[in-house]
Amino acid sequence: MTTNVLVLHGPNLNLLGSREPEVYGRFTLTDINNRLSEQAQARGTAVQFMQSNHEGALIDAIHEARGWADGILINPGAFTHYSYALRDALASVALPAVEVHLSNIHAREEFRHKSVLAAVCMGQISGFGWRSYTLGLDALIDKIQEKRA
Amino acid sequence: MTTNVLVLHGPNLNLLGSREPEVYGRFTLTDINNRLSEQAQARGTAVQFMQSNHEGALIDAIHEARGWADGILINPGAFTHYSYALRDALASVALPAVEVHLSNIHAREEFRHKSVLAAVCMGQISGFGWRSYTLGLDALIDKIQEKRA
Amino acid sequence: MTTNVLVLHGPNLNLLGSREPEVYGRFTLTDINNRLSEQAQARGTAVQFMQSNHEGALIDAIHEARGWADGILINPGAFTHYSYALRDALASVALPAVEVHLSNIHAREEFRHKSVLAAVCMGQISGFGWRSYTLGLDALIDKIQEKRA
Amino acid sequence: MTTNVLVLHGPNLNLLGSREPEVYGRFTLTDINNRLSEQAQARGTAVQFMQSNHEGALIDAIHEARGWADGILINPGAFTHYSYALRDALASVALPAVEVHLSNIHAREEFRHKSVLAAVCMGQISGFGWRSYTLGLDALIDKIQEKRA
Amino acid sequence: MTTNVLVLHGPNLNLLGSREPEVYGRFTLTDINNRLSEQAQARGTAVQFMQSNHEGALIDAIHEARGWADGILINPGAFTHYSYALRDALASVALPAVEVHLSNIHAREEFRHKSVLAAVCMGQISGFGWRSYTLGLDALIDKIQEKRA
Amino acid sequence: MTTNVLVLHGPNLNLLGSREPEVYGRFTLTDINNRLSEQAQARGTAVQFMQSNHEGALIDAIHEARGWADGILINPGAFTHYSYALRDALASVALPAVEVHLSNIHAREEFRHKSVLAAVCMGQISGFGWRSYTLGLDALIDKIQEKRA
Amino acid sequence: MTTNVLVLHGPNLNLLGSREPEVYGRFTLTDINNRLSEQAQARGTAVQFMQSNHEGALIDAIHEARGWADGILINPGAFTHYSYALRDALASVALPAVEVHLSNIHAREEFRHKSVLAAVCMGQISGFGWRSYTLGLDALIDKIQEKRA
Amino acid sequence: MTTNVLVLHGPNLNLLGSREPEVYGRFTLTDINNRLSEQAQARGTAVQFMQSNHEGALIDAIHEARGWADGILINPGAFTHYSYALRDALASVALPAVEVHLSNIHAREEFRHKSVLAAVCMGQISGFGWRSYTLGLDALIDKIQEKRA
Amino acid sequence: MTTNVLVLHGPNLNLLGSREPEVYGRFTLTDINNRLSEQAQARGTAVQFMQSNHEGALIDAIHEARGWADGILINPGAFTHYSYALRDALASVALPAVEVHLSNIHAREEFRHKSVLAAVCMGQISGFGWRSYTLGLDALIDKIQEKRA
Amino acid sequence: MTTNVLVLHGPNLNLLGSREPEVYGRFTLTDINNRLSEQAQARGTAVQFMQSNHEGALIDAIHEARGWADGILINPGAFTHYSYALRDALASVALPAVEVHLSNIHAREEFRHKSVLAAVCMGQISGFGWRSYTLGLDALIDKIQEKRA
Amino acid sequence: MTTNVLVLHGPNLNLLGSREPEVYGRFTLTDINNRLSEQAQARGTAVQFMQSNHEGALIDAIHEARGWADGILINPGAFTHYSYALRDALASVALPAVEVHLSNIHAREEFRHKSVLAAVCMGQISGFGWRSYTLGLDALIDKIQEKRA
Amino acid sequence: MTTNVLVLHGPNLNLLGSREPEVYGRFTLTDINNRLSEQAQARGTAVQFMQSNHEGALIDAIHEARGWADGILINPGAFTHYSYALRDALASVALPAVEVHLSNIHAREEFRHKSVLAAVCMGQISGFGWRSYTLGLDALIDKIQEKRA
Repeated sequence: MTTNVLVLHGPNLNLLGSREPEVYGRFTLTDINNRLSEQAQARGTAVQFMQSNHEGALIDAIHEARGWADGILINPGAFTHYSYALRDALASVALPAVEVHLSNIHAREEFRHKSVLAAVCMGQISGFGWRSYTLGLDALIDKIQEKRA
Repeated sequence: MTTNVLVLHGPNLNLLGSREPEVYGRFTLTDINNRLSEQAQARGTAVQFMQSNHEGALIDAIHEARGWADGILINPGAFTHYSYALRDALASVALPAVEVHLSNIHAREEFRHKSVLAAVCMGQISGFGWRSYTLGLDALIDKIQEKRA
Repeated sequence: MTTNVLVLHGPNLNLLGSREPEVYGRFTLTDINNRLSEQAQARGTAVQFMQSNHEGALIDAIHEARGWADGILINPGAFTHYSYALRDALASVALPAVEVHLSNIHAREEFRHKSVLAAVCMGQISGFGWRSYTLGLDALIDKIQEKRA
Repeated sequence: MTTNVLVLHGPNLNLLGSREPEVYGRFTLTDINNRLSEQAQARGTAVQFMQSNHEGALIDAIHEARGWADGILINPGAFTHYSYALRDALASVALPAVEVHLSNIHAREEFRHKSVLAAVCMGQISGFGWRSYTLGLDALIDKIQEKRA
Repeated sequence: MTTNVLVLHGPNLNLLGSREPEVYGRFTLTDINNRLSEQAQARGTAVQFMQSNHEGALIDAIHEARGWADGILINPGAFTHYSYALRDALASVALPAVEVHLSNIHAREEFRHKSVLAAVCMGQISGFGWRSYTLGLDALIDKIQEKRA
Repeated sequence: MTTNVLVLHGPNLNLLGSREPEVYGRFTLTDINNRLSEQAQARGTAVQFMQSNHEGALIDAIHEARGWADGILINPGAFTHYSYALRDALASVALPAVEVHLSNIHAREEFRHKSVLAAVCMGQISGFGWRSYTLGLDALIDKIQEKRA
Repeated sequence: MTTNVLVLHGPNLNLLGSREPEVYGRFTLTDINNRLSEQAQARGTAVQFMQSNHEGALIDAIHEARGWADGILINPGAFTHYSYALRDALASVALPAVEVHLSNIHAREEFRHKSVLAAVCMGQISGFGWRSYTLGLDALIDKIQEKRA
Repeated sequence: MTTNVLVLHGPNLNLLGSREPEVYGRFTLTDINNRLSEQAQARGTAVQFMQSNHEGALIDAIHEARGWADGILINPGAFTHYSYALRDALASVALPAVEVHLSNIHAREEFRHKSVLAAVCMGQISGFGWRSYTLGLDALIDKIQEKRA
Repeated sequence: MTTNVLVLHGPNLNLLGSREPEVYGRFTLTDINNRLSEQAQARGTAVQFMQSNHEGALIDAIHEARGWADGILINPGAFTHYSYALRDALASVALPAVEVHLSNIHAREEFRHKSVLAAVCMGQISGFGWRSYTLGLDALIDKIQEKRA
Repeated sequence: MTTNVLVLHGPNLNLLGSREPEVYGRFTLTDINNRLSEQAQARGTAVQFMQSNHEGALIDAIHEARGWADGILINPGAFTHYSYALRDALASVALPAVEVHLSNIHAREEFRHKSVLAAVCMGQISGFGWRSYTLGLDALIDKIQEKRA
Repeated sequence: MTTNVLVLHGPNLNLLGSREPEVYGRFTLTDINNRLSEQAQARGTAVQFMQSNHEGALIDAIHEARGWADGILINPGAFTHYSYALRDALASVALPAVEVHLSNIHAREEFRHKSVLAAVCMGQISGFGWRSYTLGLDALIDKIQEKRA
Repeated sequence: MTTNVLVLHGPNLNLLGSREPEVYGRFTLTDINNRLSEQAQARGTAVQFMQSNHEGALIDAIHEARGWADGILINPGAFTHYSYALRDALASVALPAVEVHLSNIHAREEFRHKSVLAAVCMGQISGFGWRSYTLGLDALIDKIQEKRA
């Protein structure tokens, strides 16, 4: 039985690699997606990727995930700090979700310390660059397969 | 002379019925729209419905309402708590607006107690499930017809 | 089987009609009570009215309602914002309660945005003048009769 | 044409003279009322006095003052800091009101610095012991007679 | 020489036993008063009881206690959190006072953590159900008799 | 034995009469000084006046008052809200001081509710236009002469 | 060498001219764009305009500007106060940006005083109606050409 | 069946009797322990005492209490206000705990009003000097024996 | 008809050019004044300059401007953040005023984000170095001449 | 070349498995250490473990790690929220550190949302039970070996 | 090579010796200046003294110090707590500055705990009466001479 | 008669010289102790040194100082900001205490601005590196010897 995971990248992550590399590193989003694909394949998991700068598009994608996905890996970008609509979307679909951040948001500006999504996610990983994604994917697959066992 | 009302449903309300039914009840959005249609018809009012998870789409709809609607019934969902853009949209079109919420937002998490839209709405109804909508529609039609009289 | 409802009017509402009519409208409390009586009768419901400027008298009335009422419709006036004793009274009797306000309290001074009673009421309606009461009574009767069904 | 003034003394002021004399002085309420009577008489003014430890009784008295008084002199005692119901009562009757305090509330505990009544009073006098009353009565009569002139 | 104690029960405590028993226990106020009477008698102390939902009535009772009581045992109920008038009443009469609460107010909602009366009481006991009263009475009698010794 | 009083007018009060008359009235500073002079003379008191827009000049004047004055009547203008230096000056000279304000500062913008000087003044009068000064002078002279008696 | 500038208009600015003209003036967005075009042409600058009520669309436009624009002139509308995603977008593309507002946001409601974008803009101009735009365009072109020189 | 109680004294309590006697009284810790021993013995209870200025040592003692104690009586001293580690220790062992304070912490400096331990204790007693301990021990034993019954 | 403008430079601006040039640039105050003179002359406007480190001197200058100036261009320096006296001065003279800042105050330390003067100025320009002044002067002259037209 | 890692377990973690298993899971600390040992061995890394309920002991261990360790994996327990001393210790030794938490601290009580250590750690992982440790160890080893490469 | 130091005394310090001696001691400013002169002479340093109650005069003196002084010793008096202009003056001249206070400002009223100047001073000494000055002068001379060495 | 002083170094100070030398300088703790020894000897004073990373050990040392020391010189390190237990320890022993800091804590991160110990120390010196200690020792010895004289 395959595990299906939706990977969501929030606003401005399409610029990864060129955007403030001293903060976010030099990997592109394609690099990260490729890594995640390989990692998923090795664990019998199918991943679908989506990036959007539109809050509404991310919410739509979360809603659609109810039909096919077993869990969600999400880097909400700046929506982390104010998108209560995204929070409600995650709560609505009741899929296990893992929140990841490239930089350590708790060590940056005060406004980045607070995640309005945390209350509806199983866990949060921040500060490890692209590895935040791979660590998060591992944790998410473990969780999904554990529940099935 | 017909009364025309725009009914706006904000983010995540498309999931109604399946989303956290212990909080939001088991009615679907279609159920609610049907009820509102009947209620409107009985009072000589035409209603148009729109749901979107996109803040911008809701703003566009509010702007377009200037051409045809006499009032707006809105459940802003989570945008209630931070969308100053939605607030400015309502202020811009200067139509009477009624704000409704399925759950009693003043009895839930602290961040849900505050509505940034309230200042530009004539009133607020929260906590009565789908009835919040029907109560709100009645109040709105009364207001519109009272002004005409 | 008759439905019995207690309607409570908090401080200063006895002046209705003469008090700041630009904020609260020109209806008197008797006008409102008459409307509510008719509306109640039409729905097979008996209503009793009480107005007091004394917090303690309102609490006493809530306590006594345990013996005969099926629900409470309350406009707590300014007690809305600080009377934790009134809140505890409503919690104590465990009857469904609806909180109503003539003006939209969320659109007025900052101190009026907060209701310390909301957490123990099923819903809140504010901003529709005397209609806040009639909308609230409808919602309350629906609730009571729904539970019985 | 006689000027009529209602003098209201809030909670605990009945103990004046014996209560914490180092803070509030040694004059009794009767002493103060006597002084105010003489002062009023000298200015062609009739005064009526009322003291209560009951917020509701003070509100009732304010309401009744609409029928006969031209102004209100009030020492709200501790109600100063939280009785929004008293504030609404003063706003409702729309009579000129002067707020007085025996001690300088702005020089005492933090919670005493704030008056929720100030917004609906023409002025505030605090810190002069019984003289706060006599100064306040003078100011109030001046105001009333000035408007008539 | 007899010790005399006034026992004051604040708002909603008349409902004890039926009101939210999972929070406040199943003892009635009469049960508690009976226990306190026995306990008092055993220590040569006379107690008088009073319960009111009226802030002003409690203040009046505190004032009258100056004539006959040696100390006050008070459960201020929800007045704990906002009644500065009650605080001033206790300060005015300068009798030793002990503040008791059935539930542990410091472990409940944030607004219940703060007592505006504490500053004028010798001590506070909360969380022991009816035992909060008996512990408090013991402490109060000890204090009174210690001063006499 | 003559009583000597320093009357201090803070920043912008030199414009009185022309400055925002709907807030501050139409009297000029000279009008007020003339009234105070007459009032003082009638009570055997000599007054000296000083107005400055310079915080330092007001402090210098307060210091010099130690040599000749028995009390200070001060309208600190906007310095009320932030000049801790003025506060320390008043504390340094240890003369009785009365703080007056033309408008009711507690009924205006939030930042005007706080007086950093209040803690070192015997009392505060605000909201009575030029009468705030005359009421304040009376209170100050009473205080000075009472101490002498 | 031509200078290229992207002009972004945020939510609700499409209604300019009809929306609350007492706050925002009677000019339409087309009027403003025409003025800016003329002004730009006179300084050898090409401008492209974009208005959207969709936060995501504005972010997309900022990203695309990396390919062709030398600077950004932005009126973020209500997004000013909460769109951290827009802020990150501006930071990501590292183009000089000027923030403009028609009304003086620092003189309006408290929530409008704060700009979450300011930290990533070179400067801010607010309060001059359509002139805020023309002043901003001048400042932006100066900056771009100064760097080139 | 014997009841076993751990009595914990937090930082600086070893100095009792000599430390600020005007605040904490003249009893030494040994005096208090002796009293508690007698009281315990009379009720068929064994008590063990421990005092430490080391947060970690108190935590260790709480952990060890799982093996032998039926309840904990704790005066956390200044740790009351910030030791979340102590709070977690009490939560971990799931024994009934009573929090006592010699002085009335709610009547002292603001920072002493807050107990981070209260949420995991059954009750709190403060302000009765050494009697806070004896009252607390009684309450604790009652609780333990009540559960057994 | 000539337009007359007062240009006010607040504290520390006399050091311009040598003071923290990485923040404030290398232009001196004379350089700026010269530019403004030329710009003014080109638009038929006379300007007078004044710099002071004394709050009172700036207030005096504002008062005197009532006699001759049509508008005020002011860089209040650090007074921006606390001088309510300067604010009242600007409000008193009721001339159009434009507030300018060399650096972008909204992108610096938190305390620099707030302007207590903004509420009485028509607009604010910050972050463009000496160009903040020239942009501000243009806006001010436009405003003055627009009103005359 | 071997990689050496210090694994630190803060207060109350010694109780793991028995302490609040619904929050922290049923694994014991030994279970976790065994897993980490295996994982480390597989990656050519030596780990040393230390648990303490004493803030000082944890600081001492961090200091000693300077002599032998290449990185620190730390679960600070409740010290996360207030131990600035632990923060300074981590900053002092300048070794890469990863902060892990069993539960999702950002989804629990408000006081647990804030980490005073985050500013000196490379990243934070919370909410994955014992997997938070294994994910953290992987990230830490990657980081250390990446720097060496 | 001589070291030159400017010693600045802020508002109200001219009254030293007579002003609140229980807080500030009995030394006069001349006493302190004499001591500092002797101390300076002994270390090959020339000192100039200046006291003013005018914020602007202190700023002027700081500016002039750029021409001759190597460091500044300043007791800002109450300006410590709000004079951002003084802070900017110290930042502007970029001379080493030491901030001294007679009393321990961190142990007095809350508003005295904050120094808006601290961020631009090398250090702060408070609480040692006149010795705060002599300790500060020593530290300042050490610093200046250390840099030269 | 010898003067005896306890010198306490709080957490992480054992690393001095190697720890963040850009903040704390290159002196080691031994260097500082040696200097203090010499300085003390020259003034007929005996000093004892103690450093600990354990809050409890510092408290123990303070308690023991009652038997032999005349004063305490303490650098509380990060305990400055939260150790109310240390504060109570200093208050308990009632010895004069001087608080010193190597860096200027008032110019660093916000959380370092607050000292919870200041209220029980005679003074505070911060920002002068090792000289903060020598200045503090001088001030302390002066104080002790002054009291004896």
